[in-house]
Amino acid sequence: MEQAPGLANQRAVRRYNLGVVLRHVSEHGPRSRATIALETGLNKTTVSSLVTELIGLDLLVERGLDYRGTVGRPGQVVELSSSGVVALGVEINVDYLAVQALDLTGKERHRALEARDNRRVSGAEVLEHVAALAADAVATVEAIGLRTVGATVAVPGLVDADRGVLLVAPNLGWTDVPVVDELRRRLGDPGFPVTADNEANLAALAELWEGTARGLSDVLYVSGEIGVGAGLIVGGELFRGGGGFGGEFGHMTLERGGRPCGCGSRGCLETLVGLEALLEMAGLPELGPTGGAARPVGELVERARGGDERALAALEEAGRWLGVGIASAANLLNFQAVVLGGLFAQLAPWLTDPIAEELRAHVLASDWATPQVLPSTLGPEAAVRGAAASSLQRIFADPGHAA
Amino acid sequence: MEQAPGLANQRAVRRYNLGVVLRHVSEHGPRSRATIALETGLNKTTVSSLVTELIGLDLLVERGLDYRGTVGRPGQVVELSSSGVVALGVEINVDYLAVQALDLTGKERHRALEARDNRRVSGAEVLEHVAALAADAVATVEAIGLRTVGATVAVPGLVDADRGVLLVAPNLGWTDVPVVDELRRRLGDPGFPVTADNEANLAALAELWEGTARGLSDVLYVSGEIGVGAGLIVGGELFRGGGGFGGEFGHMTLERGGRPCGCGSRGCLETLVGLEALLEMAGLPELGPTGGAARPVGELVERARGGDERALAALEEAGRWLGVGIASAANLLNFQAVVLGGLFAQLAPWLTDPIAEELRAHVLASDWATPQVLPSTLGPEAAVRGAAASSLQRIFADPGHAA
Repeated sequence: MEQAPGLANQRAVRRYNLGVVLRHVSEHGPRSRATIALETGLNKTTVSSLVTELIGLDLLVERGLDYRGTVGRPGQVVELSSSGVVALGVEINVDYLAVQALDLTGKERHRALEARDNRRVSGAEVLEHVAALAADAVATVEAIGLRTVGATVAVPGLVDADRGVLLVAPNLGWTDVPVVDELRRRLGDPGFPVTADNEANLAALAELWEGTARGLSDVLYVSGEIGVGAGLIVGGELFRGGGGFGGEFGHMTLERGGRPCGCGSRGCLETLVGLEALLEMAGLPELGPTGGAARPVGELVERARGGDERALAALEEAGRWLGVGIASAANLLNFQAVVLGGLFAQLAPWLTDPIAEELRAHVLASDWATPQVLPSTLGPEAAVRGAAASSLQRIFADPGHAA
Repeated sequence: MEQAPGLANQRAVRRYNLGVVLRHVSEHGPRSRATIALETGLNKTTVSSLVTELIGLDLLVERGLDYRGTVGRPGQVVELSSSGVVALGVEINVDYLAVQALDLTGKERHRALEARDNRRVSGAEVLEHVAALAADAVATVEAIGLRTVGATVAVPGLVDADRGVLLVAPNLGWTDVPVVDELRRRLGDPGFPVTADNEANLAALAELWEGTARGLSDVLYVSGEIGVGAGLIVGGELFRGGGGFGGEFGHMTLERGGRPCGCGSRGCLETLVGLEALLEMAGLPELGPTGGAARPVGELVERARGGDERALAALEEAGRWLGVGIASAANLLNFQAVVLGGLFAQLAPWLTDPIAEELRAHVLASDWATPQVLPSTLGPEAAVRGAAASSLQRIFADPGHAA
């Protein structure tokens, strides 16, 4: 049946206004329908009806009367519901798998972490594991009355986000893995949407939304792991580049003809400041990265704290290389800050000064705009939190998706 | 006197619609008022009145009757006026000054070029020369009945576009030159606006609007001169970076601890592929760049054509370095094409292959999205044309500026 354009338009406007009200409560806190109407410019009857619909979607709840400064009878205050819906962040990384469920207020309601080396095994086996973690998360939150409304998978590689395909993950040795379809199938085609994105992109968003980059608009997030990932925030939004494959900071060539990199190229930043390079420079190659990054990074931190000269020299050198790479990116992009994430966050006390010095030396506009160097405040959780939060954003953008 | 908001709003709408009509004629060619009304959805009376105003502003002219496919009496066809207004492009470069006047149809109505080494002299002296060229251009076009409605100055350095100040031009050795104020003063405070921008930014826009990048949305324009400049087009628009100082591709560090660069840093791309480096590698250092780039580049082209091994090796090596730098930028920005401008356009027959090879080797997404390598079609005029065109764009965006 065809609809009159006027009617279709009215529905679109209503759906849009649902988002206006939900985001207003999210940004400004609990308030009455009358206050929402006053502050958004929508009329009272419309707001009442929108709030009723948002309560029906489990997105808002009433929490009592508001007596402050009201004329006439006090109104019921509504707030974001923490007992309605959750979104899942799912992370596949080189040496661990992680799942996190966030409710609409951003509170963590479930988490699971499984350390395992994903480099020696097939994509199918890893997906089986991660699907089990995700299924367990869905069941666990369901048991406490929470409905899952979306999941985002964070992966360490190039992602075709439209198709949900991991095109290449150099450090996993994977190519062309249809992560979204595979996960959907293993979850028995769940009623919620599943998407995938690059882990550093998601971590950058998390730092922007609730981490150290809050309030900034132009940021390079650099994450040290076994590989080096990055996410670019330009004008307050994730910058993917023309074809969606931007932000591959770890594969900038810093040493032409340098060491071979997992990506097939040579002399990438990753070959100079990734975990293996760091451990080798520090004289700790035997710690290797096969058992995950936690232990070797802990050891490196301990040695640096103890004044071990070789460890300090390695961190200084890594900081200088990072600084040179960040300076080149800053000359192109002129961002306000660089956020050090992953293992670089833990090593920030030793990396920050050499990075800042190289920025002063190499950034052409350094007299006017040297980027700040900020350690991540979300740490290794940034990617999985950003994954869950980006599924929540979809609900805030269009609450109709929670139906 | 305060205006009723309704009235102010009506004026804003009318001003906006002036632009709609002017751009429609510019993009789709000469047509009648009735056709414009039909195609833009504006009503006929409004279009008639808007066209009358645009004719009054010297932006449109009537050119005869349209008998094609009209019902009722044929309408007067209007088209862009080539006899009303011009905009000036003014270029201050290291080894020349240039001025160009374009009319509204994009046709060149005046040009002047003065080869001179601007590195050994003060900013004041150079501004005196360039102001004389600009004043001469204004007078010349005025003599043939054309009114100047804007000028944009292209300069080889970091520009604070809001204030019209050239902050630093490493290859001129200038810092903090208030180019716009100085030029305005020397032109006797002309009735038209004067703005300034980086030369490579303006050249990139020219290539996008009417050069080899037409139809593309994400492009890196790289210009070889004595220095190496670049302009970035992202999503069809000039990308300036968060603080306005982006696009400094020539100062990416390609060789840590490499040769000193004019910017105070070391190992910048410019030190590896700028004119001086090229001539040195080719065994032609005696040609130097002090007398301008034309002669030495011509000599280099001639030797390469003649199969001179040293010249060919130098071009191959420069192409490889350029490829490595472009690949790093592509990993960050994932653009569709790189445009080789300035002297790189003339040398493109020898640079293209090594650049393309390095892109294939170093771009992580090269299996899905290797940037094309395109020589500039506008050549050394790109910057001055882009400067004039960007002042014209201001008129197309808001024809009220031509008043």
